[in-house]
Amino acid sequence: MKQGFFITFEGPEGAGKSTQARRLYERLQSIGYPTILTREPGGTRISELIRRILVDLRHTEMAPTTEILLFSAARAQLVSELIRPYLATGGIVVCDRYADSTFAYQGYGLGRDLEELRTITDIATGGLKPDLTLYLRIDVEVGLQRKRASRERIEPGSVQPPEWNRLDARDLAYHQRVAQGFNELMAQEPERWYALDADQPVDELAEQIWQVVMARLAQVMPLAAQ
Amino acid sequence: MKQGFFITFEGPEGAGKSTQARRLYERLQSIGYPTILTREPGGTRISELIRRILVDLRHTEMAPTTEILLFSAARAQLVSELIRPYLATGGIVVCDRYADSTFAYQGYGLGRDLEELRTITDIATGGLKPDLTLYLRIDVEVGLQRKRASRERIEPGSVQPPEWNRLDARDLAYHQRVAQGFNELMAQEPERWYALDADQPVDELAEQIWQVVMARLAQVMPLAAQ
Repeated sequence: MKQGFFITFEGPEGAGKSTQARRLYERLQSIGYPTILTREPGGTRISELIRRILVDLRHTEMAPTTEILLFSAARAQLVSELIRPYLATGGIVVCDRYADSTFAYQGYGLGRDLEELRTITDIATGGLKPDLTLYLRIDVEVGLQRKRASRERIEPGSVQPPEWNRLDARDLAYHQRVAQGFNELMAQEPERWYALDADQPVDELAEQIWQVVMARLAQVMPLAAQ
Repeated sequence: MKQGFFITFEGPEGAGKSTQARRLYERLQSIGYPTILTREPGGTRISELIRRILVDLRHTEMAPTTEILLFSAARAQLVSELIRPYLATGGIVVCDRYADSTFAYQGYGLGRDLEELRTITDIATGGLKPDLTLYLRIDVEVGLQRKRASRERIEPGSVQPPEWNRLDARDLAYHQRVAQGFNELMAQEPERWYALDADQPVDELAEQIWQVVMARLAQVMPLAAQ
């Protein structure tokens, strides 16, 4: 198997994507799958510098087009420097958010033209799409409360509290449009997405994700064949 | 006159664009034209942060697509935050480099698809084009030597020596493709461009630029009408 397997996590704020992405990555590694874990925006030196500009709460003057182009620049670097080369070795890439977030947040959330976003995204990624996208579904208000609360303490298994950033600070109606956008994206490509209820204990959600991923990998990338 | 007048400077490294842009800006102001001076990439807080990532000599791993998207992001912010609002007040904007540099450097220089660059540029600028583009023509080798030499001293009238950055460090053949690209861009829109010989004393070049600009402004934006 030469082209690897590309898994992304998507969903509203506070659904537990980062925690679950890390759990999945660690378990895949533990049974012998060559796997890397990364995140968007970020994951490379240059992309993390771009992330700093994007999330800075002081940058209230940022134009929507600037935001889209910065996310796309960070994505282009991550795909080119890390994701494509690793997939080419036959490995598994687990990524916390990817291009679907641009469609949900900047397209459905901010009302930007979806065709324009697809054009930029195709340029940024060279057309690379995930093989499987895990959607962690949670009520928008519950998720935002979770994320706000988690700033106050260190989550088990996480190195630092999640940041509360410029994008989280947008209003509730915006976050609801984003969640509705994810629903529409799933409806357009149901074979790529798998939705899970994120309002349940972390261990149970992790186990459900594991079963989904194992079922898919058994078809395309059985471990015995590694 | 409500839509203002948008002047850009283009040309190879070391042609004296920054010096001449400043001279033109100061002289326009001195006779009463409301004028601002800006530069690309940069010109706003967010765009200057993007510039830092772009010019950093350590960033040798930057993918060509990342570079294009970062230039476009910086441009989108500059147009949205500074250039469009100022033109809307009827003012004159003088900008040291603009979208033509993307076509010359990333298109002709790096061999990226020009149609793709036009698509991204239209998104970034919302289609805003300069009214007049002043091209400072200089032999590529002479220009690079000038720029290298000028790092050693402070130019008269300039606050700091020009930076020697990641893009300057590319090879001579690249800079020659860029110069040829500018020639092709001029041939496509001769009415927008005005080329001047930059291999002459600074004061003489400044005076030639002044005559060109005055002739154009007399037609579209006579000072008496201000």
